Amino acid sequence: MTQEKQIRPAPIEYRPIGIIHSPYTTISDMPIQPAGADAIRGTVELFSEYAAGISDLDGFSHIILLYHFHRAGPGTLTVIPFLDTVGRGVFATRAPTRPNAIGLSTLRLVSVEGPLITVEGIDILDGTPLLDLKPYIPEFDAVASTKHGWIDTVRKHARSRRSDSRFS
Amino acid sequence: MTQEKQIRPAPIEYRPIGIIHSPYTTISDMPIQPAGADAIRGTVELFSEYAAGISDLDGFSHIILLYHFHRAGPGTLTVIPFLDTVGRGVFATRAPTRPNAIGLSTLRLVSVEGPLITVEGIDILDGTPLLDLKPYIPEFDAVASTKHGWIDTVRKHARSRRSDSRFS
Repeated sequence: MTQEKQIRPAPIEYRPIGIIHSPYTTISDMPIQPAGADAIRGTVELFSEYAAGISDLDGFSHIILLYHFHRAGPGTLTVIPFLDTVGRGVFATRAPTRPNAIGLSTLRLVSVEGPLITVEGIDILDGTPLLDLKPYIPEFDAVASTKHGWIDTVRKHARSRRSDSRFS
Repeated sequence: MTQEKQIRPAPIEYRPIGIIHSPYTTISDMPIQPAGADAIRGTVELFSEYAAGISDLDGFSHIILLYHFHRAGPGTLTVIPFLDTVGRGVFATRAPTRPNAIGLSTLRLVSVEGPLITVEGIDILDGTPLLDLKPYIPEFDAVASTKHGWIDTVRKHARSRRSDSRFS
């Protein structure tokens, strides 16, 4: 039996466009998602050379941050999520120890002042490198999802559960 | 007046974990977002070494794909979006010509068969390198957004508008 050879595209390099500041300085004891962070505020400091890119952003009530989990341990394929007690495929979780450690948080936009963006509901470690930010557009980002796999049995804990050091 | 020197974090390198296949082989004439793609199907081919990471994914009705806009032109800070006629800050748009060309699409999950994931509503160019995939979890990803800036005046066209070559 011949095995088809899969071509691997070249690695892709991104340069952080800013730094995320938050009250969370240790990996343990953070909210595990924005839902648990409620009114906690943080700021996104966009590097000066990108500041022109946030014109018109202040008209949106919510934004999506994409960032690098800079303190996560090595990527693994199976993880025990904060909300669960058994191993799950990492791509069926939001765990930071992913092959490409990209984080995604949708947060309420409080204000934009020059290159400083204040957000509410932050669940991100202080000092995290920002890769991209996008406006939240309900037609694109809010879907009528109906099934949430293993999460459906444990989701009631998502607001109160805190992180521990398992992914550091 | 002294100007505080901003430290720039090191560039971050990611390796594509798979390839996205779709009916769209040219940048022009694509739906500009999943909302315009309706029932168009595509497949995500996860590279074999990552296949174990999609255990438990089939329990979710929607997934989030993060990918590299591999055919986008150079990143710019001001763009004229498909839906508009005036320049907007790129971070207030979903245009592909971003400083870090990361794309984000939330799609309906049709099936998972081995390393092949079939999705519906695809708005992604054939051959696009996949960086990450995450389950869509409404507590984290669906927010009650209320303001959508410049989009609010033009959003009625998002379902029907097609792309052109402005970002290639």
